[in-house]
Amino acid sequence: MNALGRHILAEMYGCDPGSLDDVERVQNIMVDAAVKAGAEVREVAFHKFSPQGVSGVVVISESHLAVHTWPEFGYAAVDVFTCGDKVDPWDAVHIIAGLFKSKQVTASEMKRGVLLDPCAERVAAG
Amino acid sequence: MNALGRHILAEMYGCDPGSLDDVERVQNIMVDAAVKAGAEVREVAFHKFSPQGVSGVVVISESHLAVHTWPEFGYAAVDVFTCGDKVDPWDAVHIIAGLFKSKQVTASEMKRGVLLDPCAERVAAG
Repeated sequence: MNALGRHILAEMYGCDPGSLDDVERVQNIMVDAAVKAGAEVREVAFHKFSPQGVSGVVVISESHLAVHTWPEFGYAAVDVFTCGDKVDPWDAVHIIAGLFKSKQVTASEMKRGVLLDPCAERVAAG
Repeated sequence: MNALGRHILAEMYGCDPGSLDDVERVQNIMVDAAVKAGAEVREVAFHKFSPQGVSGVVVISESHLAVHTWPEFGYAAVDVFTCGDKVDPWDAVHIIAGLFKSKQVTASEMKRGVLLDPCAERVAAG
């Protein structure tokens, strides 16, 4: 199976509410995670909501990282989408979960852009 | 089940390669889709890669839209993540697929931030 990208959707529960509501801290955590995972940061866009919550995205050469926080529930929805072999998206997920002090993380990896060559598939199947 | 958000991951194949490689056009399509679906745009960040491809994100009050394009394969990976009841993420997906002239779309909806109250669940179960 030839996939162009790997996309991890992580649900981070039991996070530190103070961190989740601090837009500068959330941005630093997401950018640091991208850099430490070996990604190249291209664009950054974050927004602080009133009365609480932060949304933001880091566009990287390898795709993107996104976060939406609900401090009132200690919850953050985190996405790490990477293409290529240079960056392991799970590295970024682990870093982010640690810095948010998440007590419970569930995560799924989705393959994105699966390109099959039907003729090759038929040949392989005999 | 009480989910904070709905996240659609759409694989758009057979798209118009010219549109996928034009950063201004891709940005306009994503912003237009957000606005027409009833979302409130907060931040926009797009990047054109060399020799080809565009990545970009629209942060909305209701979460985000993201796109990564591979013009050489006529493929775009599109995400629409919304919270609340005001915006139907499928509206944005349909608009984007139409404007990219995608000939084949597969898409999945994931629930994000499912918060269960264990006591309420037990009471409901008797």
